[in-house]
Order: sequence, then structure tokens, then C-alpha cells
Amino acid sequence: MSEGEFEFIAHRLRPLAAGAPGALDLLDDAALLDPALGTQLVLTKDAMVAGVHFLEDDPAGEIAQKLLRVNLSDLAAMGAAPIGYLLALVRPKAIEDDWLGAFCAGLAADNAEFGISVLGGDTISTPGPLTLSLTAIGQLPKGTALLRSGARADDDIWVSGTLGDAALGLAVLQGALDAAGPARAHLIERYRVPRPRLALGQALRNLAHAAIDISDGLVADLGHVLEASGVGAEVRTDLLPLSEATAGLPGAEEAVLSGGDDYELLFTAPQKRRAQIEALSRRLDLPLTRIGEIRGQPGLRVVDAAGVEVRVERTGWRHF
Amino acid sequence: MSEGEFEFIAHRLRPLAAGAPGALDLLDDAALLDPALGTQLVLTKDAMVAGVHFLEDDPAGEIAQKLLRVNLSDLAAMGAAPIGYLLALVRPKAIEDDWLGAFCAGLAADNAEFGISVLGGDTISTPGPLTLSLTAIGQLPKGTALLRSGARADDDIWVSGTLGDAALGLAVLQGALDAAGPARAHLIERYRVPRPRLALGQALRNLAHAAIDISDGLVADLGHVLEASGVGAEVRTDLLPLSEATAGLPGAEEAVLSGGDDYELLFTAPQKRRAQIEALSRRLDLPLTRIGEIRGQPGLRVVDAAGVEVRVERTGWRHF
Repeated sequence: MSEGEFEFIAHRLRPLAAGAPGALDLLDDAALLDPALGTQLVLTKDAMVAGVHFLEDDPAGEIAQKLLRVNLSDLAAMGAAPIGYLLALVRPKAIEDDWLGAFCAGLAADNAEFGISVLGGDTISTPGPLTLSLTAIGQLPKGTALLRSGARADDDIWVSGTLGDAALGLAVLQGALDAAGPARAHLIERYRVPRPRLALGQALRNLAHAAIDISDGLVADLGHVLEASGVGAEVRTDLLPLSEATAGLPGAEEAVLSGGDDYELLFTAPQKRRAQIEALSRRLDLPLTRIGEIRGQPGLRVVDAAGVEVRVERTGWRHF
Repeated sequence: MSEGEFEFIAHRLRPLAAGAPGALDLLDDAALLDPALGTQLVLTKDAMVAGVHFLEDDPAGEIAQKLLRVNLSDLAAMGAAPIGYLLALVRPKAIEDDWLGAFCAGLAADNAEFGISVLGGDTISTPGPLTLSLTAIGQLPKGTALLRSGARADDDIWVSGTLGDAALGLAVLQGALDAAGPARAHLIERYRVPRPRLALGQALRNLAHAAIDISDGLVADLGHVLEASGVGAEVRTDLLPLSEATAGLPGAEEAVLSGGDDYELLFTAPQKRRAQIEALSRRLDLPLTRIGEIRGQPGLRVVDAAGVEVRVERTGWRHF
């Protein structure tokens, strides 16, 4: 038998709201927020279902962190700094108190890491699978948000970090791919605990024309930018950044182009910003790699080092 | 086969975001909000599961309205004016396009009624029951929010509208209660389509000491106010406002005290405000009824007209 709604909110969630006066200790119907003068608020909401967006036996703390971080990644893509979040936990009756404790410990760790708090929460029961929904709130100086629609012809296309790791981590967890040792641990961690590129997103407000986080896969998410901006692009497969763990694994090329869940940032920037972006990469200790360029003519061409077009079979992970 | 995520957002949700420039046509990772100077934002999030919080065969448009309105009711209880909302729709694969169309038509009708827009949305699939989560955003002048913690000894306790209707409506739908004709229709409508008391909540910012919406039942929700305020109360059962449809039905007394889902406001106000509150009732064409008073000593006494204490068996609906 597990805790009820009131006990869960009083004992588990309330301590996670302590950093935010506007959360009103979760005693009220809603939270209050005082936006700073000259700022805009940024709001995003993503939901996840056990067995669809994460594996049922993933560690509870890492499920909590993934839920939070995929939302923080959306804030990062807009260039926002996170403030806090509201959580809905829709849980099967069979869930154990220990599981809830570990879930909230994961949130507590990330609250400390990202300087944020719970602002509100709801918990209800379901006869179905564990379902989670989170609304994250961030802020940025008015008028500085990075949008998908800002890409222009001749922009460089950049990505942060490495691509394909999370998709291969999922394949490892599902038994579809063999990997051992540090490579295995790296791939699984990339799948379970993405790293929202918040510092990068905020630094890009003055450098980039457009940005998006790679959640559906490089080809699919770049496609969203091209569509919103009314432009096309050429991407070179030999330039795509692979981790040491990924290089040489079967399925790596497909994972890099079409695997979801990496939560790296893809952004476009004018060529004259190259030196600044390379300096930013060094300052953040985060690889930033030019993988192609924006073209005025619509359509996405993916080519190899010799300029031969590569056929992309899967155009990205769709969550349904 | 039903629509996918992209089609649902593009064809169904995007038109519902047209009133809000900050929704960015739902093309981006997140929404932007420009809070007006001197205002605070109010955020609330409630989730619902088919078969637990609504009946699977409730009309889709009314499920949408209930989801939205229970959240607007939380804003009303704080005294906020609604701005918009973010929606997560977690749906079984079997759901039909017609159902989705009717669901969104319900949202469109309420957007028009309440002057709000969709600000963001997410839709994912689930092997479990239909699950809905909504985050509503409102605003109010800084420092004017009505809290649960403001009740003081000798305050009058007021409720809006009538109580118990929704619980009896649910009993009718479940076949546990017989009702016919207009009474039946009234009770079912009260269960399916609550009326958030937004105008009342905003008017109470200058009149009331504390407020809450009655979602768990009168006794349970008054209990939340007493606990947050560190006070007690006496409530008179003969003063509780019943609708014509409710009066005389079996189970009416229990429904009035402990039935959830009415979404009326309970508030406390100093006795010197009685004339103003009665004038407000006439202006809003909404019954406002004094049902008891706040006491300095903790504890809730429920008494009949002769002052004899009534034993309250169920202390309110808990959603788990």
C-alpha cells in the first residue's frame, strides 16, 4: 500500500518547494510567480509514459531526472534560464514508497544542480502505466528568445556534444545491441539522464539565428527548423560528431542521423560567428561541431564526404 | 488509425493558439509570456484519468471542458484572471479522430467563453487509459492573491452556488441514483461541466480573507483552510445551499457535506463585509450563502439547526 495524495505532497514534494516562496509550501491551489522587470517567461510541457518513453525498470531517480531534463532542454533551446516546475505524477496503485522516495531524491539532486524548485504538483492514481507530466518555467530578457524560425541561407549548422548515443543506449537496454564496459555505461547514461544544454542556450542568444533541441533525431529536428524558417540545408555525414563509445558500433550511422533522445542543441549561426562559437565551446568545455549549412532552396540534402547523397530511411522517432 | 502527434498539433491545437502571440503557433519548443507590470502570475496543474476522474463515455467536448475548468477553478480560488494553458493529451491508440475533433471543439468553446488560448501542448500515446494533464496560467495584481491561510476567528464562512449536485450527478451516471427530467440533466451537467467562479474570485480579492474551491468536498476543503490558517469552524447543516434538483434526493445530505467536484468557492470574510458580499451576489446573479463561522479554537464542528453535532462519516473524496 502506498502513500496517498496528501501524504505524498506533504512529505515528499513540499521539501522540494522550499527554495521558492511562490510555491506557498504547496498549501494552496496554485503557485505565484513574480517575473523580473524586462523578462519574458518561457513555458514548456512534456509528458512521458512507462514502457513508451522510458523503461519500467529504469531507476526511479533517473526517470525523475529524465522527465525534468527533457523539459529543461526545451528551455535551453529557447535560450532561457530555468526557474522551477509543476509536476503531475499519475501512478499505478502498486507503486512502492521506496520508489517514490528515490523518484523525489532524483528531483532533489536536479533542483540543486540547476538551482530550481518544485512550484506545484498533483498526484493521482491510474489503472494504467505510470504517466508523468511536467511543466517547466524559465525566463530570459525580453525579445531574446531563440526560435526555430530564425535560420537564414548561408548560416552554418552546428550541434553540441555527440549524437546517437541515447538511441544506442536504448538498444543496449533492450538487448538489441551488445556493448560492454565503459562504452555500455556511457550509452545507457546518455539515454537515461540527458544533459540539458542550458549554459549553451543562454550564451547563444546573441550568437545564433535559430535553435532546437534534438529529441526526435537530427534529421527530424533539423526538418522542424527548415520548415519553420522556410529554408533548406545540406548536412555532411562525415562531419557528424560521434562519441568514442558510438564509433564503429552497428547501427551507429542510423542512430546519429535519426536516433532520438540525445537532447543536444542544434543551432544555426552566421559564418562570421565561427570564432566566437569556437571560443564558447572551449569556455563551456563542450564540443560544438559544424555539420553543414543552410540553403535558400527548401529541402534537406544529406551527403557523404564525396558529396554523394545519403538516403535517410527513418526520418526520426515519433512518440506514438 | 488516428492522427499522429504532428498532425494533431498542426490541425487541431494550432487554431486554439491563434489568440496568443506567445504561443508562437505551437511551432517552437516552448511558449513566451509577457507578464504585465505589477502583476503576479498564478500557475496550477491538475491531471485526470479516464474511469477515475471522469467516465470513459462522457462526451469528449465535456471531458475537455471539465479538464480546463477544474484548473480555472483553482485560478478563481486565488482571485486570478486566466490567460491560457498548456495541455498534455496522453491517449490510447484506439482513440478516434472524431473524438479528438469533439475534444478540441470543447476547448474552442471554452477559449471563447473565458477569453483564453492554448499556449502549448504535447500529445503522446499510452497502452493505458486516456490521461490528461493541464497547466493553467492566470494573473492578478501583485500581492492580492487569496490564500487558504488567511481565515481569522469570527470570519463568516460563505459558499457560492449549491453543493452536492456534482456528486449526485455522478451517482446518477453510475446508476446508483434515480433522477429524471430536468433534475437528472441538471445533476449530470454539474458533474460534467463545472463552472469556475472566476468573476467571483476576482471580486473577492478585496473582500475575503481566505478562499478555496470545493473539489474534494465541503468538509475536506474547509479542513484545508482551517489547517492552513490555524483556526477552527462551526458549520450549520440547515444553512447549506441545495439546488431544487438535490433537495429530498437520497444521499443529498452526505453529498452536500462530502461530495466532491462541485467547484464552487468557499471563502471567509469579516462580518462587516456582509452587505458588500450580498450586493456582489446580486451583481453576479450567483447565490452566496453564509454557512457558519470561523472559531479561534482548532477543529471543525458540524451542527444542525438545534446546535446538535452531526457526525460526518466521509471526510471528502480523495482522488486515489
